[in-house]
Amino acid sequence: MKTVLVIGIGTGSPEHLTLAAIAALNRAEILFIPDKGAAKADLAGLRRTIIERFVTRPDSRQAGYAVPRRNADQPDYGQGVDDWHAALADIYEGLVAQIPENSTGGFLVWGDPGLYDSTLRILERLKTPHRVEVVPGITAIQALTAAHGIPLNRIGEPVVITTGRRLGTVHEDTVVMLDGQLAFLQADPDLEIFWGAYLGSPDQILIAGRLGDVTEDIVATRQTARARHGWIMDTYLLRKPA
Amino acid sequence: MKTVLVIGIGTGSPEHLTLAAIAALNRAEILFIPDKGAAKADLAGLRRTIIERFVTRPDSRQAGYAVPRRNADQPDYGQGVDDWHAALADIYEGLVAQIPENSTGGFLVWGDPGLYDSTLRILERLKTPHRVEVVPGITAIQALTAAHGIPLNRIGEPVVITTGRRLGTVHEDTVVMLDGQLAFLQADPDLEIFWGAYLGSPDQILIAGRLGDVTEDIVATRQTARARHGWIMDTYLLRKPA
Ligand SMILES: C[S@@+](CC[C@H](N)C(=O)[O-])C[C@H]1O[C@@H](n2cnc3c(N)ncnc32)[C@H](O)[C@@H]1O
Ligand SMILES: C[S@@+](CC[C@H](N)C(=O)[O-])C[C@H]1O[C@@H](n2cnc3c(N)ncnc32)[C@H](O)[C@@H]1O
Repeated sequence: MKTVLVIGIGTGSPEHLTLAAIAALNRAEILFIPDKGAAKADLAGLRRTIIERFVTRPDSRQAGYAVPRRNADQPDYGQGVDDWHAALADIYEGLVAQIPENSTGGFLVWGDPGLYDSTLRILERLKTPHRVEVVPGITAIQALTAAHGIPLNRIGEPVVITTGRRLGTVHEDTVVMLDGQLAFLQADPDLEIFWGAYLGSPDQILIAGRLGDVTEDIVATRQTARARHGWIMDTYLLRKPA
Repeated sequence: MKTVLVIGIGTGSPEHLTLAAIAALNRAEILFIPDKGAAKADLAGLRRTIIERFVTRPDSRQAGYAVPRRNADQPDYGQGVDDWHAALADIYEGLVAQIPENSTGGFLVWGDPGLYDSTLRILERLKTPHRVEVVPGITAIQALTAAHGIPLNRIGEPVVITTGRRLGTVHEDTVVMLDGQLAFLQADPDLEIFWGAYLGSPDQILIAGRLGDVTEDIVATRQTARARHGWIMDTYLLRKPA
């Protein structure tokens, strides 16, 4: 049987790697490295840094693979994701074929493999028999709250994790990820926001305050940073005023 | 100025420590170690193992402290927590006083310091001037989903994190923590549950299935394990059937 390790690598700092992740990088005979294109070159850079710094196994190999783009013109979001996963499953099938029998391959996953990541779901589609092992990683949520020095929840209170697409009226403290559409522009200006971009990396940016007071600053900062890097990843917590 | 490091140490496995956490353990001149009493001796054991294995700084010191119990008979939950935090703040004041001027002390926090943990809130109450730095850690949530090999969220869908005390009708996929009262007994039996105890540790136990089918098994397993260890920590994800 082949083993596929799905290794959470944190969200920007090599220092956020766990010992279990480093061990897993070295258990894999072959590591699979996505090539997301020049726009996200900084992300690819972190993966390379991690491999150079922490992979000590002398016979470790790497296989790059091209990541197809999701068809954003597909009006049915679910169908668009499904088509994209099917295309990725074909590619993964070829990658898993490169793992020698009774040996181990590894995917390096941004943050934690359980949080808004498709690797596990795509592996489930494969026909090649294999067993999956998941190594947890620090998520953008922990990176956000640690950088701001704040608790995620209020005492005994719930927290919602959602996406920009799904953010509606905020009833509970809410973390928003995957927000290309600046969903916070529609939110109650009296909410408190804790915003962070490029969390964990040397380029980390933090802004916090009453949403109505800092919205303009976030929009402008986001735009400038995005133009400079060619990409942006940001996450924020919306907290109801006490 | 004194620096207080609040260091997430993961939830049961020393392998879940990050490199940043190990560095922080060695940046601190003094580490503060709670003594929660014999009942949670296994937890204290993990802290000791971590310190023995990873603290290499020769002049590292440790200060133990007794943790007062929260008065569970206080009918007002908020007031009970507030009194407890006030008592802890007095103790922390004494701990921070032991940090030499311009030096660094460190608290080892179970999981991530942002998630259902009071350390940051108690530090906010201190009168002694100090700066706080938070080092993120793997939470019980990541340990749970990694152990089960599952994604936390469904594609693009939100996730709620809550406590046993606050679990009501499950409208979204929900993670339940701090559940001494077995709140899942009141939940819709058609939900899927992914349950885990002592996550990350050699004693880890996992049960998954349709809630109605596995409830008895979880209740019995929980009771036996708790009797054997003298304590239990468990977390679960309730997922709506697709
Ligand atoms: C596809 S999801 C992957 C999440 C990842 N698995 C995790 O555990 O954080 C990508 C989203 O995560 C958030 N994110 C990831 N890395 C980030 C970072 N370094 N700074 C800010 N947000 C980040 C952003 O909201 C981004 O849109
Ligand atoms: C006071 S909270 C601390 C949470 C911690 N800060 C974290 O990041 O996971 C304690 C609760 O976390 C969960 N928990 C912590 N460690 C766990 C473990 N090893 N296995 C299962 N659940 C755990 C349980 O729900 C427990 O009641």
